[in-house]
Amino acid sequence: MAISFTVTNKLKNGRARLGLLHTPHGTVETPVFMPVGTQATVKTMTPEEVWNVGGRLILSNTYHLYLRPGQELVRESGGLHRFMNWSGPILTDSGGFQVFSLGPLRKVSEEGVTFRSHIDGSEHFFSPEKAMEIQMALGSDIAMAFDECAPYPCSYEYALEALDRTSRWAERCLAVHRLEEQGVFGIVQGGVFPDLRKKSASEIVSLNFSGYAIGGLSVGEPKELMYEMLDYTVPFLPEEKPRYLMGVGSPDCLVEGVLRGIDMFDCVLPTRLARNGTVFTRRGKLVVRNAGNARDLTPLDPECSCYVCRNYSRAYVRHLIKAGEVLGIRLTTIHNLYFILGLMKELREAVREGKIVEYRDKFMEKYHSG
Amino acid sequence: MAISFTVTNKLKNGRARLGLLHTPHGTVETPVFMPVGTQATVKTMTPEEVWNVGGRLILSNTYHLYLRPGQELVRESGGLHRFMNWSGPILTDSGGFQVFSLGPLRKVSEEGVTFRSHIDGSEHFFSPEKAMEIQMALGSDIAMAFDECAPYPCSYEYALEALDRTSRWAERCLAVHRLEEQGVFGIVQGGVFPDLRKKSASEIVSLNFSGYAIGGLSVGEPKELMYEMLDYTVPFLPEEKPRYLMGVGSPDCLVEGVLRGIDMFDCVLPTRLARNGTVFTRRGKLVVRNAGNARDLTPLDPECSCYVCRNYSRAYVRHLIKAGEVLGIRLTTIHNLYFILGLMKELREAVREGKIVEYRDKFMEKYHSG
Ligand SMILES: [Zn+2]
Ligand SMILES: [Zn+2]
Repeated sequence: MAISFTVTNKLKNGRARLGLLHTPHGTVETPVFMPVGTQATVKTMTPEEVWNVGGRLILSNTYHLYLRPGQELVRESGGLHRFMNWSGPILTDSGGFQVFSLGPLRKVSEEGVTFRSHIDGSEHFFSPEKAMEIQMALGSDIAMAFDECAPYPCSYEYALEALDRTSRWAERCLAVHRLEEQGVFGIVQGGVFPDLRKKSASEIVSLNFSGYAIGGLSVGEPKELMYEMLDYTVPFLPEEKPRYLMGVGSPDCLVEGVLRGIDMFDCVLPTRLARNGTVFTRRGKLVVRNAGNARDLTPLDPECSCYVCRNYSRAYVRHLIKAGEVLGIRLTTIHNLYFILGLMKELREAVREGKIVEYRDKFMEKYHSG
Repeated sequence: MAISFTVTNKLKNGRARLGLLHTPHGTVETPVFMPVGTQATVKTMTPEEVWNVGGRLILSNTYHLYLRPGQELVRESGGLHRFMNWSGPILTDSGGFQVFSLGPLRKVSEEGVTFRSHIDGSEHFFSPEKAMEIQMALGSDIAMAFDECAPYPCSYEYALEALDRTSRWAERCLAVHRLEEQGVFGIVQGGVFPDLRKKSASEIVSLNFSGYAIGGLSVGEPKELMYEMLDYTVPFLPEEKPRYLMGVGSPDCLVEGVLRGIDMFDCVLPTRLARNGTVFTRRGKLVVRNAGNARDLTPLDPECSCYVCRNYSRAYVRHLIKAGEVLGIRLTTIHNLYFILGLMKELREAVREGKIVEYRDKFMEKYHSG
């Protein structure tokens, strides 16, 4: 089996746990945050830089790579790892979330989804089979099943219909998957309805994937509701398989997710915020591009020991961003990923020591004190 | 004296030479090419990356730093080196070239130049005194005198007027300069008129600067005419001082410049070309963004051993550039600077071995064979 998972520590009180995720490109400690490399690059960074800030497993997007440069070129290049020069493990999403997000540009049927490219408007068709074919060509370590992610808010009926389709599509994905050195994760849907989450989880888990993702959360619902849905859903996922909460990457949600037994996360938030000139600090977010930082000679976060905080001032980073210099968003990206990946490291330490609740309380108090 | 210069090798036949330029931030082997860090950053690169591709002395722009972020912030930050985290030497230009390039936005008098900011249209005034004051605040290792760069083509009368003013301004620059740890270079003007070049050189050299720049070339005149003007001008510059040919950075001009006794060069060409998706190769320029490279799995330059050529294909770099990914222009920039700085290293080697003419012939033949 391409992917295996070992739970190495499990809290007696609570669901938080530590694990090792074994992949064809190395073993990763969990809980883990995956930086997002949408177009075969974590925006602004080299692979070495991603590694140096603590990135070990990255995510790349099937929808984007299919449209540009095309999975065949990636296959000819020796696969995605070689194409983008990343030797660690890669997870690819299925493209489902992207094509369902296209709104009026897409049409759904039982067979699959017809959609128009956001680049040139050309028409394309994704099915479970197509999504797996593309991911096999990309050669990621973990492929995701093609699912229907219901929006928030949505009716019970729509959520039910989407989860049923997701279950049928999950079977079709497994039926065509035939790349030994690639694991496949199933995705649990069900909107914000506890009984639908239970139904979806039991159907998807019965198919015996390498791991299970919780989809359809972090799509606009209140954070408290997301935490509640995690509390409903996680108990229906098997202890011995990795659990992946899709699209989550804000510091508070990462902490709460780990506390609830999640092993894997991904999100564009840290890198996207960075490109907008906002950085994480231990005392909350800082909009470094604001005029108030123009003459501030302190680091982005005085408590951070990343490359950026050791060498540059807020004033310099702000100057670069205001002047439109690429180095500005490179520096904020490095810092933000270092911050998030450092947080994950501390969370693993807290779980190891059985002090995750204390860590959560202390982290949150400070994070909201800025 | 902040700046000193030692000629370590001098060809018997011809003017090419090797030297050591000693500055408060270290010693640099010449002939040297200076990457340009216009806004306190070599576009897209960290200082470590500039160093790793072979950059040892960089140039930054007084006009740009004066407008944004302002020289006072740089001074408060501990000077330009500390502000931008570059520990090697820095040369700043005087702003003269930029303000004279503003065309209808500027007005020249004997006192100085009134101009409007290209950023917000606000009115500003540069004089020789102001240009020195700003450069002293920036704390560069080498400041440039404030000169008037005549355009090409221009009349004999205009060129004469500009060089006379440049001479008077050169005296005013030295009169107000009082930063011990900063050298000042004078600039020779005179357009494409041999007798004016001679006049300018003798006037500027009589003022005893730390080094001498040849300005007003590489402004649109044919390359052959530039080489001719170098042949006229260099003999009037003292052997024991560094000679700096401003605004030159194409491979062929670097080779011809070294052959003619030039010690220092700067140009935005390698980095600007890179951002437009064009790279240097030993067989000439390659427009990597062109469709013809879409499936090309070879490196940018098969003969190059830079980080980019060791790890990435033309197809991948092209994908990044087409997809608007920052990493694309980072990679082309790294390669182009490595190429130019590697060329400079080979030129120094060729001078050392007394084989600069043979090197020129061989390099040119191949460079024009692509
Ligand atoms: Zn930091
Ligand atoms: Zn190269």
